[in-house]
Amino acid sequence: MQKEQFTMKILVINAGSSSLKYQLIDMQTEGVIAKGGCERIGIPGSVLKAKGNGKEKVYNNDMPSHKVAIELVLEALHDDEIGVIKSMKEIDAVGHRIVASGEYFKKTTLVTPEVLKTLEEKTFELAPLHNPAAATAIRACMEVMPGTPMALVFDSSFHQTMPEKAYLYGIDYDDYKKYGVRKFGAHGTSHKFVSQEAAKFLGKKPEELKIVTCHLGNGSSISAVDGGVCVDTSMGFTPLAGVLMGTRSGDIDASAVEFLARKKGLSHADMVTYLNKKCGVAGISGVSSDFRDLEAGMEKGNERCKLALDMFNYQTKRFVGAYAAVMGGLDCIVFTAGIGENTPYVRAGVCEGLEFLGVKLDLEKNEGKNDGGIRDISAAGSRVKVLVIPTNEELVIARETAELL
Amino acid sequence: MQKEQFTMKILVINAGSSSLKYQLIDMQTEGVIAKGGCERIGIPGSVLKAKGNGKEKVYNNDMPSHKVAIELVLEALHDDEIGVIKSMKEIDAVGHRIVASGEYFKKTTLVTPEVLKTLEEKTFELAPLHNPAAATAIRACMEVMPGTPMALVFDSSFHQTMPEKAYLYGIDYDDYKKYGVRKFGAHGTSHKFVSQEAAKFLGKKPEELKIVTCHLGNGSSISAVDGGVCVDTSMGFTPLAGVLMGTRSGDIDASAVEFLARKKGLSHADMVTYLNKKCGVAGISGVSSDFRDLEAGMEKGNERCKLALDMFNYQTKRFVGAYAAVMGGLDCIVFTAGIGENTPYVRAGVCEGLEFLGVKLDLEKNEGKNDGGIRDISAAGSRVKVLVIPTNEELVIARETAELL
Repeated sequence: MQKEQFTMKILVINAGSSSLKYQLIDMQTEGVIAKGGCERIGIPGSVLKAKGNGKEKVYNNDMPSHKVAIELVLEALHDDEIGVIKSMKEIDAVGHRIVASGEYFKKTTLVTPEVLKTLEEKTFELAPLHNPAAATAIRACMEVMPGTPMALVFDSSFHQTMPEKAYLYGIDYDDYKKYGVRKFGAHGTSHKFVSQEAAKFLGKKPEELKIVTCHLGNGSSISAVDGGVCVDTSMGFTPLAGVLMGTRSGDIDASAVEFLARKKGLSHADMVTYLNKKCGVAGISGVSSDFRDLEAGMEKGNERCKLALDMFNYQTKRFVGAYAAVMGGLDCIVFTAGIGENTPYVRAGVCEGLEFLGVKLDLEKNEGKNDGGIRDISAAGSRVKVLVIPTNEELVIARETAELL
Repeated sequence: MQKEQFTMKILVINAGSSSLKYQLIDMQTEGVIAKGGCERIGIPGSVLKAKGNGKEKVYNNDMPSHKVAIELVLEALHDDEIGVIKSMKEIDAVGHRIVASGEYFKKTTLVTPEVLKTLEEKTFELAPLHNPAAATAIRACMEVMPGTPMALVFDSSFHQTMPEKAYLYGIDYDDYKKYGVRKFGAHGTSHKFVSQEAAKFLGKKPEELKIVTCHLGNGSSISAVDGGVCVDTSMGFTPLAGVLMGTRSGDIDASAVEFLARKKGLSHADMVTYLNKKCGVAGISGVSSDFRDLEAGMEKGNERCKLALDMFNYQTKRFVGAYAAVMGGLDCIVFTAGIGENTPYVRAGVCEGLEFLGVKLDLEKNEGKNDGGIRDISAAGSRVKVLVIPTNEELVIARETAELL
């Protein structure tokens, strides 16, 4: 038997309102064969930067639509220089990243006309920027790759195991039923990936572990993963909730929002935009949403940069403690995503004072270089393991797609 | 020297929009000499139920204003039958409970014309139901008891020790400065009282203890009291935030509020009313805001009554864990107020699974009768002490007032 005959190549698509990122993944090795991203789709100056065969090529073609962008991606995958496939048939399936599922989709779902209809009719208002873009990309793929199976992989699927007491808000129950307003969570593929990687790294079964996964990036969420399943997460109905983020406020008293709306003369919808775009560490520091800028500012003595970082650490620590409590214990804390993987100040700030939970950070290891691999930064004898694990959402999307087929 | 000459009597006033509760407290014994409450002030059918000399008397007088109510209270204090004083001069001072201080008052403050002006001009919008009623009561007291010193005792004073990283929301810092939108907390007098009582009961100094105080009543808040000072609390800019309550939602994604407003066709202000009045355990259960009704419903197999209780326990537990984390340890959990003192199901639900923190409840003691005293309901060998402590906000107000003089 030849191993090759089982090789499967999966194209992972992550579409934004004016962007489209992709990776072609070989499922036998789980290696990335080609990757790239289109920017400024539908905007003058669109560009695709594509990598393959160890080379990069930049396409400055006009991309008036996601369909044209997909066509260009496929062209890049066939390109004489950077191309990695000879025929479209080599792509066995496409996995589409979908931000919001509402209560309409519980898990990874094969695209059918019916499914696409539900996605379009029911979920757009739950993620007005992301889901319509994804649907456009799916339709574009269906046109240019007819017959290729496509899967919807939802950011929120991993959080579907949350119990009712964790995902419900304290609102009128009939309103929850009627309008589907509840906690869905986000970054599920990342929380799933790093919690599974942590178990592997520790030589344990996921069932044996109580893990708090801290996906800290431009958007940040913290999850409680008990026995391999998510039991709570910090993001809510939308990705506005939880800890403060780059420009997002995180949790805030709903009355305070109404008070501020009156003071600022803003509509309710404008307040949501304000809370999403003008707040977070950018709003607190008045300097930047980028944690590297905040660290640089702090080092130069900027008090508000330090405040923004310390608020972020403090709020993240609160979730770590809360989630240890709901799981009834803690075996492992995982840091992942841009900030989680690259900001020792944050990891140290979150873990500081958690010795009573059995958390002991090795400060030297914490400051060590990010080599792209999994790093155990806990001190010798730390009962709770503290790990830095590079996330790989694309790989989870590819795995989920492959499993579905 | 005669002890009597140091005796001080303090009248504590707690005014609501149409109600006014009072206690006359002897500061030497800290005993209540007389107490009572006016209901339906400014509404037909007003009534004062007054107690003194071990008797109760009901006054069905018209009370068109708080001034008339205060006059009636003073009449009751002088009454032939239930009266406890002979002359107004026996009342050494009045302590007024004030819900909201904003950033204008950091601590208990003697009433002056300037202070009253600030209270009236700056804080009404922070507690539109409570602060105007209190100001009316203060003006009434000043008229009928001219020359008697009066103190403002704020619900939020005890929370003034919170660090910036705990009380700030992740919003634009200039907006915080300009509009004072931050976390203030509530039930401060209760959190202060029970944390001090806990230290006394345990034979420790407050400085030695890390305590989570759970004030669970019609309104509920949880505080982290580290070394005798509050470092974090679950209520926010207003008493809407934190855990779900009788009819209040507690924390909710701000985007979910805007989404629901659109669906329900409600204005932003109406949504705040909805979140305050139509949500919480009443909204979840569809049965009642009263925990006794929820327990009765649960016992009869009503799933949604059980859900409401379990959500309340779960959310409270999350705060206990979060606050242990921010304090870097936990020595004691205190339950107080109506639900905290009287609902074993809640105490058991909150403590369940916290064995890893050193919490071990004695289930039999937990079910024991409320004798009105302090009860240690932790099991033998529980490293973390779990106490039930009847709160006494009036006594704290009296103490604060006496200290000020």
